[in-house]
Amino acid sequence: MSEHGPVRGAGEAANAFGATVPEATTLTPTAGGVCAVEGIAAGGLAAGLKPSGRPDLAVVAAPRTVAAGAVQTTNAVAAAPVHLTRRHLAATEGRGRAILLNAGSANACTGPDGADTARASAVALAERLGCAPEEVLVASTGVIGQPIPRETLLAGIPALVADAAPDADGARRAAEAIRTTDTWAKEAAVTVADPAGTATVGGLAKGSGMIDPAMATMLAVITTDADLRHPTLASVLSDVVARTFGRISVDGCQSTNDAVVLLATGEQHAPPALGALVAGLEHVCGALAEQIVRDGEGATRTLHVHAVGAETDADAEVVARAVAGSDLVRTAVAGGDPNWGRVLAAVGAAGAGATGLRAHAPRGTAPGGEPTIGSGDQATGPRVPRVVPERLDVRFGAVTVCRFGAAASFDAGQAAAALRGPDVHLTVDLGLGEGRATVLTCDLTHGYISINAEYTT
Amino acid sequence: MSEHGPVRGAGEAANAFGATVPEATTLTPTAGGVCAVEGIAAGGLAAGLKPSGRPDLAVVAAPRTVAAGAVQTTNAVAAAPVHLTRRHLAATEGRGRAILLNAGSANACTGPDGADTARASAVALAERLGCAPEEVLVASTGVIGQPIPRETLLAGIPALVADAAPDADGARRAAEAIRTTDTWAKEAAVTVADPAGTATVGGLAKGSGMIDPAMATMLAVITTDADLRHPTLASVLSDVVARTFGRISVDGCQSTNDAVVLLATGEQHAPPALGALVAGLEHVCGALAEQIVRDGEGATRTLHVHAVGAETDADAEVVARAVAGSDLVRTAVAGGDPNWGRVLAAVGAAGAGATGLRAHAPRGTAPGGEPTIGSGDQATGPRVPRVVPERLDVRFGAVTVCRFGAAASFDAGQAAAALRGPDVHLTVDLGLGEGRATVLTCDLTHGYISINAEYTT
Repeated sequence: MSEHGPVRGAGEAANAFGATVPEATTLTPTAGGVCAVEGIAAGGLAAGLKPSGRPDLAVVAAPRTVAAGAVQTTNAVAAAPVHLTRRHLAATEGRGRAILLNAGSANACTGPDGADTARASAVALAERLGCAPEEVLVASTGVIGQPIPRETLLAGIPALVADAAPDADGARRAAEAIRTTDTWAKEAAVTVADPAGTATVGGLAKGSGMIDPAMATMLAVITTDADLRHPTLASVLSDVVARTFGRISVDGCQSTNDAVVLLATGEQHAPPALGALVAGLEHVCGALAEQIVRDGEGATRTLHVHAVGAETDADAEVVARAVAGSDLVRTAVAGGDPNWGRVLAAVGAAGAGATGLRAHAPRGTAPGGEPTIGSGDQATGPRVPRVVPERLDVRFGAVTVCRFGAAASFDAGQAAAALRGPDVHLTVDLGLGEGRATVLTCDLTHGYISINAEYTT
Repeated sequence: MSEHGPVRGAGEAANAFGATVPEATTLTPTAGGVCAVEGIAAGGLAAGLKPSGRPDLAVVAAPRTVAAGAVQTTNAVAAAPVHLTRRHLAATEGRGRAILLNAGSANACTGPDGADTARASAVALAERLGCAPEEVLVASTGVIGQPIPRETLLAGIPALVADAAPDADGARRAAEAIRTTDTWAKEAAVTVADPAGTATVGGLAKGSGMIDPAMATMLAVITTDADLRHPTLASVLSDVVARTFGRISVDGCQSTNDAVVLLATGEQHAPPALGALVAGLEHVCGALAEQIVRDGEGATRTLHVHAVGAETDADAEVVARAVAGSDLVRTAVAGGDPNWGRVLAAVGAAGAGATGLRAHAPRGTAPGGEPTIGSGDQATGPRVPRVVPERLDVRFGAVTVCRFGAAASFDAGQAAAALRGPDVHLTVDLGLGEGRATVLTCDLTHGYISINAEYTT
């Protein structure tokens, strides 16, 4: 949906991952990012956490304590803010007033001091906002193992709160302040309308490397004025994340800090049906996830891997992930080479249970602190999809380069053209059924090596 | 065991993967590669399969039909020679006379014509050797999806048989002829002696990219004069491969063509005990596996990932694989950066079930055609190792950079020195038990991108 026009159901694409818009529903992209939702204030500034002096501290706040939920990394080495946010959502049974985000340090592998810093920052923001500390959620991104200078962080909070504004500028400042290797600030917003009513969904995100389907964004904040509460909020968020942020990959590396936080103000008293709202959430999360891949470290092309004709959608997802996770496929795309042999090797590895990307789903945090499993989870267990080599077709764009598991005759010029642009569509047709899934990744280039062989400890 | 001197048990290292030599056993590296074993003849020449005109056809032959077995890729899109070799070993109940190998085309995804070509080449070699076609095994490497020009292949076989010789030169010509992106021909041999007797083990291999623990070499041929037969041969081979070729990674991509074939002549009538022979096999397979990593596409450094202190060896293997499979760890090693945060993120992902490398073992082919599972298999199921963040230590060389899951104070100069040489030893101590495993990989560099973004279809 790069054309930015309204999308009307039924059956039109809500995002690049194949989500569709329900009948009689209209999605209209809008400005304002996370502050497109009435009453949400945001801000960002340079608190001095980044040596570069660039913005590094952000806040997104609701006008009062509202419904909240989060999907967080399942990494066993989770960062202090991940643990604190989980505890706070459990204590409040799914409510929150604001989220404090910082770049410059991940506050991961920082021991008890790191936990104390995360807690102190929540207390400080809560004092300024006049809410309970448990109503503040926290998220960090940056170098793992590096402590956050606590006094610097705390000293920045009063100015941050003063800076926050309920407008597009405030939203942009927040999105800017959480960038690390991102080359642009990532925002999206949409209004959803159906015969029952309207709602707005806004969002911001950061992420460029260490991006994996098993929790695919470093940080994102999503807002809505719909009246969505626990336990529906947690399960809807988990499902939408599994189908958007859960279907992108840059390097297959899972972060210690990933979090998607949703704040739902409930200010909208005539909201659309739940299905329409989900389409709006899928649009915003899908647009942010797509931006993360487009801004993938070193990326010159976005690779859309479409697995179709699988026995089930779950099988299709495993196959699409395996292809998107293949360094050899990704270097071939960098080289503009329609190397379908590497695609079939990756599909075959998935069919042997050796999926190129870890078969693992992100999980939502329910207010009780127990992870909740979205529908995405059943699609991503340690599943071995059915693959019949003699039925496999591979297409680059509209050009069939492999037919029934062997070379097809095709025009080399047309195939090269399909690999030339900024978007490459690679379709694997398993020839077995109606299951389908789309996973987005980027090409693997010299730029990725340069960024990561030189990124400082 | 790079020092090439004899290794005497008990307890000394038989290879880089931590295998030990039994008491009263001596391993003495020797020359001659696959032909170090009495009576084994080998040869290689340029049959015209590679456009470059370089050698591309090889044979390894026993003096008569002998015991044989193979461990092959589990990829669902397996190449024609993989299928044919499996069928032949089933038909002969684990016997073989020779193996025919070619580079230049993988004969994978080549349909019924490709299967016919593989079969015709076995028939042609059998005629020359005076054996049954089922006593000839075949293996191919090269571009996937490209047919082998059948007449060119068949025309090369008479000269190939005439060229074969039972000496070091013949062995070297065979090793040369199966190179693709390899920068050198890979050979190893050892004599094994214990109070019961002596035996010789020889081997050759090729492989440089598309190297994954779930079958980690493109092709290898191992020979011995020990009297090893089915079913012991199949189970010993499967175990040894799981602990050597099964513990290396270049890019985490599983090939369609991987095969390790063992020919055991039984000419040696006073062989050592089985344990000593296994140590000899582990030495040769370990040395070849190590060479594959050292020659990994674009590699400038070999990374030895040692996971120690795990609850079990199986847990240690999953953790070591996850770290070795992390593009971010491998780029950090390329940059000489002791970035232990990326190491902990990879360990944590393994602890979340999201292992960086697919949890999957290679399988041996029993004469009945059914895959046999070595002891390596139980170590590599979809296992989630126990990880306690507060107990994790990370060392580069002897320098502890992370202690109890947080930054240790260390001398930056010493840490940098530990990352400077051609071999980097990275140890993750889980602090939970006695389980340990070593996985070898190489750094991820601009060279890998150049090779694979430009490799032709």
